[in-house]
Parts: sequence; C-alpha cells; structure tokens
Amino acid sequence: MAKPFKKIKGGVCAPKGFLASALSAGIKDPSVERLDLALIYSEAPAISVGTFTTNRVKAAPVRVSQTHLRNGDVQAILANSGNANACTGVSGVEHARLCARTTGKHLGLKQSQVAVCSTGVIGLPMPMMRIEPKLETLTNQLSSKNGKKVAKAIMTSDTTHKEIAVRFLIDDKPVTIGACAKGAGMICPSMATMLCFITTDANVGKSALEQAVQESVENSFNRITIDGDMSTNDSVIVLSNAQSDTPRIQRKSKACRQFREALDYVMLEMAKALVRDGERVTKFITLDVKGARTYNDAKKVAEAVANSALVKSSWNGEDPNWGRIIHAVGYSRAMIREELIDIYIENKAACIGGLQADTPMELLRKAVKKDSFQITIDLHLGEANYTVYTSDISPEYIDFNRSEYAYWKQSRKDGLV
Amino acid sequence: MAKPFKKIKGGVCAPKGFLASALSAGIKDPSVERLDLALIYSEAPAISVGTFTTNRVKAAPVRVSQTHLRNGDVQAILANSGNANACTGVSGVEHARLCARTTGKHLGLKQSQVAVCSTGVIGLPMPMMRIEPKLETLTNQLSSKNGKKVAKAIMTSDTTHKEIAVRFLIDDKPVTIGACAKGAGMICPSMATMLCFITTDANVGKSALEQAVQESVENSFNRITIDGDMSTNDSVIVLSNAQSDTPRIQRKSKACRQFREALDYVMLEMAKALVRDGERVTKFITLDVKGARTYNDAKKVAEAVANSALVKSSWNGEDPNWGRIIHAVGYSRAMIREELIDIYIENKAACIGGLQADTPMELLRKAVKKDSFQITIDLHLGEANYTVYTSDISPEYIDFNRSEYAYWKQSRKDGLV
Repeated sequence: MAKPFKKIKGGVCAPKGFLASALSAGIKDPSVERLDLALIYSEAPAISVGTFTTNRVKAAPVRVSQTHLRNGDVQAILANSGNANACTGVSGVEHARLCARTTGKHLGLKQSQVAVCSTGVIGLPMPMMRIEPKLETLTNQLSSKNGKKVAKAIMTSDTTHKEIAVRFLIDDKPVTIGACAKGAGMICPSMATMLCFITTDANVGKSALEQAVQESVENSFNRITIDGDMSTNDSVIVLSNAQSDTPRIQRKSKACRQFREALDYVMLEMAKALVRDGERVTKFITLDVKGARTYNDAKKVAEAVANSALVKSSWNGEDPNWGRIIHAVGYSRAMIREELIDIYIENKAACIGGLQADTPMELLRKAVKKDSFQITIDLHLGEANYTVYTSDISPEYIDFNRSEYAYWKQSRKDGLV
Repeated sequence: MAKPFKKIKGGVCAPKGFLASALSAGIKDPSVERLDLALIYSEAPAISVGTFTTNRVKAAPVRVSQTHLRNGDVQAILANSGNANACTGVSGVEHARLCARTTGKHLGLKQSQVAVCSTGVIGLPMPMMRIEPKLETLTNQLSSKNGKKVAKAIMTSDTTHKEIAVRFLIDDKPVTIGACAKGAGMICPSMATMLCFITTDANVGKSALEQAVQESVENSFNRITIDGDMSTNDSVIVLSNAQSDTPRIQRKSKACRQFREALDYVMLEMAKALVRDGERVTKFITLDVKGARTYNDAKKVAEAVANSALVKSSWNGEDPNWGRIIHAVGYSRAMIREELIDIYIENKAACIGGLQADTPMELLRKAVKKDSFQITIDLHLGEANYTVYTSDISPEYIDFNRSEYAYWKQSRKDGLV
C-alpha cells in the first residue's frame, strides 16, 4: 500500500520549525549516564492528534495527554523512559500534570499544550526529585540537531533507536514528516508498549489529520504483534505546524492523498522497525491471510497464528512447521474449512487442501532460515484479506523478561517504596 | 469444590471388569522400544461419553470417535502416541477407521464400539505398516494389571505418566473410578493436546453420565492453560460398565451427587497433573478472579492473565510483578475499574486499589519462590468468580518446541512423505 519515499536525516527535527532535546535525569539508573528524558517542541502553533492504548488500565500520562489533546493545540511532547507512571493513582496523575505544567512554563505554553508520555516499569512512583530539576535544562537545550537524541532517550529494552524522516513534494513544494519510536516488549495489535512521535510541517487541517492518523495507525501499529501483550502506556502523537509553503491541504484532494501515503509509509516503517527490534527476536514474519469469508475472520486467523507460542517457537527453531500453523487457524474461531486451507512459506506450498504439499522439505527449511520471510494462509472461503507483521519468540525473550527486581531495588534506595 | 477421595492403585483397570494392554509399535521411533500403542477394554457392555476439542481443525481419530460415540455403546479405546493423525485427509480417516475395525474384530465388537485416539505430530501419515500387525497382540495381552502401562503409552513430551483411581461407597457398596491422562504442550481452556480416559464400574445411566462428564470437564480440563494453544486431538472419553453392585444411580439422587463429586475430583486431579507436567514448567499457579460483574468477565480476566507471556515470564523468574498482572487485567476486555483492583499473592496484598500495597517485598518474593502458589485478583465490581490453573513459561519451553524435524526424517525413512 505505502510506496517507498525518499528518506532524509533529522528524525523529528527534520520538518521545519521543530526542535528537540534529551538528557539523562537518572530515571533508569541514577548511577549511570543514560538518556531518559526528552522534549519535542514546535516553535510555531501546532495542530495535534493522539491515539492511545485500548488497555483499560491506563498510565497517568495517557490519561493526562488524552485530556490535553482534546483541544488539539499541543505544541510540545515531554517523554521519559525507565518509569511508566502506571498504576500510580492520584499522585501519578499529579506528577504527570506537574511535568506538563512545569515544561509549559519554561516554554511559554499552557499546561494543556504539553503532552506527556512515559514508558518503563509499572507500579513504581516517578522519581520526581530527579525529573523536575531537569525540565528547565531540557528546555534550554532545545535545538534542531537533537532528533536522534530523543529517539535514544525513549528507548527501554530496545537495542537500537528508531527514527525516520521523509521529504516529498506537494504542489512542487517540499513537505516533511519526521518520526521516532520505541517498542520492544508487549507489542500486540491494538497498540503496544510503544511510543511514536511524529512531526510534520504539512499544512493540514485538524479533521483531515485526525482521519489520516487513525487510518495509518490501523494499517501499521495495530498490525504488529510480538508477544500478544498490550501495554498501559501506548501512545502515538502527531504534531503538525503548517510551516511548509503549500496551500492548506484539503480533504480528499490529490495533496491529501500524497500526504496520507507518506504518513502511511512513515508509520509502517516505524511499526516494522518495532517488530524487528522486539525483545530477543530473531525473525521478521509478514503473515498474509487471504480468502477469508469476512475481514474479521481474516484478522482472527492472522492474530491467532501470530500469537501462538508454539508457532513462534517453531519459527525460532527454523522449522517449517505448517501443522502448528493450521492448528492455530483451527482455534482462531474464524469460519474455516480444513480441507480448503493452503499454507505457503515464501510462495512455496507447505500445505495444500489441509494436507502436506509435495514441496521438498529442504526448500521450505531454506525459506524459514532467512531473517525475514512471508507466510501466506489462503482459506479459500471468500475475498477478505488481512496482514500482520510478527516475530518468533526465543528462549532469550523469556529469560530477559524473568525479573524487574533491579527497578524495585532502585525505588527502595530512592525511598519511594 | 471436589473433596479428597481415597486413592487406590490400578488406574483405568481399578474399576471392576476393565482390562488394558500396551506395547511398542515403533510409532515414535522404530529403533527404540517405547510404549506407544494402548488398548482399554470393558469386558461387559458399557455406556460411553466423549468430549472433544473445539478446534475447527480436528484430527481424523476425533472425527471417527465422535461418530462412534453417538451410539453410546463404545466398549474399547485404542490410543497411540507419536503421530496425531491430524491434517491427514481422507486417508487419515480411513486409517483411524481401519484401526477401530481391526481392533473390534479381535475383540468381537463392531467398529463403532471402538473409540480411537491419537497424539503426536500433526500432518504426517500414520505408519500403519507398524500399527496394524500389533493390534492382535495388543488384544491378546489384555489384563487387569496394565493400567500403568496404558498411562505410559500415551505420553508424548510428558515427563511422568498420570493416573489415578478412587474408591468410594454408594449405599455401602464400593464404586470405583479410574483414569489416565497425557498432556504437556498446547494446554489451554477449551481443551488441550490432552487425552484422558476414564473408566468406572458405577451403575449410572447415559444421560446422568453425559451431564456429569460435561460439568466435570468444564470445571477441570477447561480451566487449565499452559501456553494458550489448543490442539486438534483433545479427547476425554468415559466408559461406565455398571459392574459395581449398587442399584442404578438416579439423576439428582444423593448417590448421583456422590458419583459426581468423585468424578469432579478425578478430573480435577488429572487436569492439575497436566499443568504440573507442562512442557518445561517450574510453577503451578492457582489463579482466582473474584468480584467480577459477570461470569464471562471473571473468565476473561483469568484467561488474559494466565496466557500473558510477560506474566508467565515473571513467574518463571520468581518476580512478584503485580504490574504485569494488572496490565493483562486491563486488556482482557472485561469491565474493570483500575482503582478498585486488589491483587494478592498467597493472601498477601501486592496491589490494593490499583496501587502498590505496603506488604514488604521480601514476603511477596518468598511467596512466588514456592513451587505452587495462589494469585487472587479481586475486581470489586460484583459477585462473579472464576478459577484457572496455570503455569509459568520457561526459556526451556521455547527451546524444547523449536523443532520437530526428527519426526519428518523418520517419516521420510518410512517412505511416507
């Protein structure tokens, strides 16, 4: 769907009029210098749209930012890693508001013009004594050179920072979209422990932007799954400051389509980057379900297969095990007929009509040895399709996620628990 | 619910009039002597009831046994491990029927009086050339001493065989229920790669037996989950031959209640044994959800938490991480209010009103260090409860499930693929 766009440097600072800064506030670990507090700021007034986790347990910053984004005039995003400020009750909400208010004061903005985002451990109080004193420095250090630093500051168990910027022409004038994202664990359709901040100088109205964001999120972040979990803190926030020289982009115009293609591309690239950098992941799988009776059936099948621990284990083992795939298709609750199901690995038939195909096993094994491969499941019952992007699950994933005790110990040292 | 009963030896052969046999047919591996073919037989005519997987991809023996059990006069069960006879199409069904027909011939029964069950790898043809010649030997070796051998022959990745027998009095006359089961991977509510065969000499009518089996399965096998997967082959089959000396057990009588309590106990003990012996599992967790608005909400919460890879990883790491539990509660789609949620580990408060409780961390850590512990989630929204029995997930589980390539190689040697 999304065609490749020309990439440029700069991340969230690539579009005109966006500044950023990031520093180490000691939220992750006061004894080590690691970026964990970041600010993105539009010098000009901006239009803002946000999409948030559907988890009914919502982190304090999600609640606060949802309120702030209602006006649609958010002009700055404050983000931290190391502490999710989730399950922190009334004081968590107070802390999130205080962060927004203090940052706003330094920037000359109202509290409601600052969105706040947190990612990290659930259930521990924010170490405000280390965050608050840094907010002024953060504001003073704003610069158009700091896109990458922001991308790094929001990382938790990510192994690499994730950013992108694309420039394209509307009416022969350059328009830019920049983005950074973090992911790693808890990635699942309907959002993830995932933050994505998108900046653009496109001259686009609020309702057109809202619709574009909603649809792009549906086709990107809502289509990725690593471990079937869904976090309390997922947020996608888009700031648009109209600083490009194009006329206002009208809904349903050619310019609007161009903008949406670019936004689709940016979000899908970020979403795929999250899967590739899933915790201890070794494989990137594009899973296409075809021929379902309904869109919902196609989605059910895709998600059942992509979230099956047994299927994911076999991918980790480079085993072209279509038996586990078809068993997950069977329990997906979608309408299926076993004897009609075809399964392809990299376009090589593994299962035809519910039975083993005669493709030599060596060919199928070679296909799943690749770092990235495609699985196609054709149900032969209708016209509906669905695609998810997913990964294997590794012994190291479990090992990695066994304990967060170190965080508790730090909070105790801080006198917070 | 189920009170402890006096256990006796003998497994499925403990009730009067039941014989069994098991041998190595080389289905698992022709070069090694491992039990993989088993027969259970009631000398007297029996009443039979079966419950099967809800997976829409059903193994051939499931389809065949469902038909055979319709008459309710099944008197023998033939079971094999090593090959699931699933996704094997028309020839798979022919193989299952042939097994039932040949076994019936040797026993003097109709084909439809023999149920067939298979467990093992999906998608490979049954090595009939090794199974068929053994069916006569199997019949000749029937004896009342072979309960344990049957329990061993149905094992796949199980580390121990699982059997039980209980004797209790109805009208001062002894009545016995025996059972064996296998489980290991793919254990999930709505059944598992799980076989359970239950024999009883109770004098109980068909409709009373059907109702008892259905309700006991709902409270036992449908309440366990190891990896969230659900297999193509799950079967619970109960044979009742009325050889005890009690009068016919009438529905809703005291005798019927006694029988059902014993059946509940037997099934729950087998179900718990399956969880304890889940693939590379180290913890047994009883997860109680209380105070839900509806039964379905309580179930959704229990299953979301029990199937969360992140929650299960933290149990493996002996980390009393209530943050991950509450995040799974949040995405369960049940009605919840974050600020009302209490979470207890072994009756020690970990989270009160959605916030960290003040129980010392050492106490909570001590609780999750036990091999077996209880988690209680109180939603404080209503009266509905639900309990599931579940486990951690270990790095070794993933490692163990990475490949089934060895099975393919054997099938190739056999000239079957």
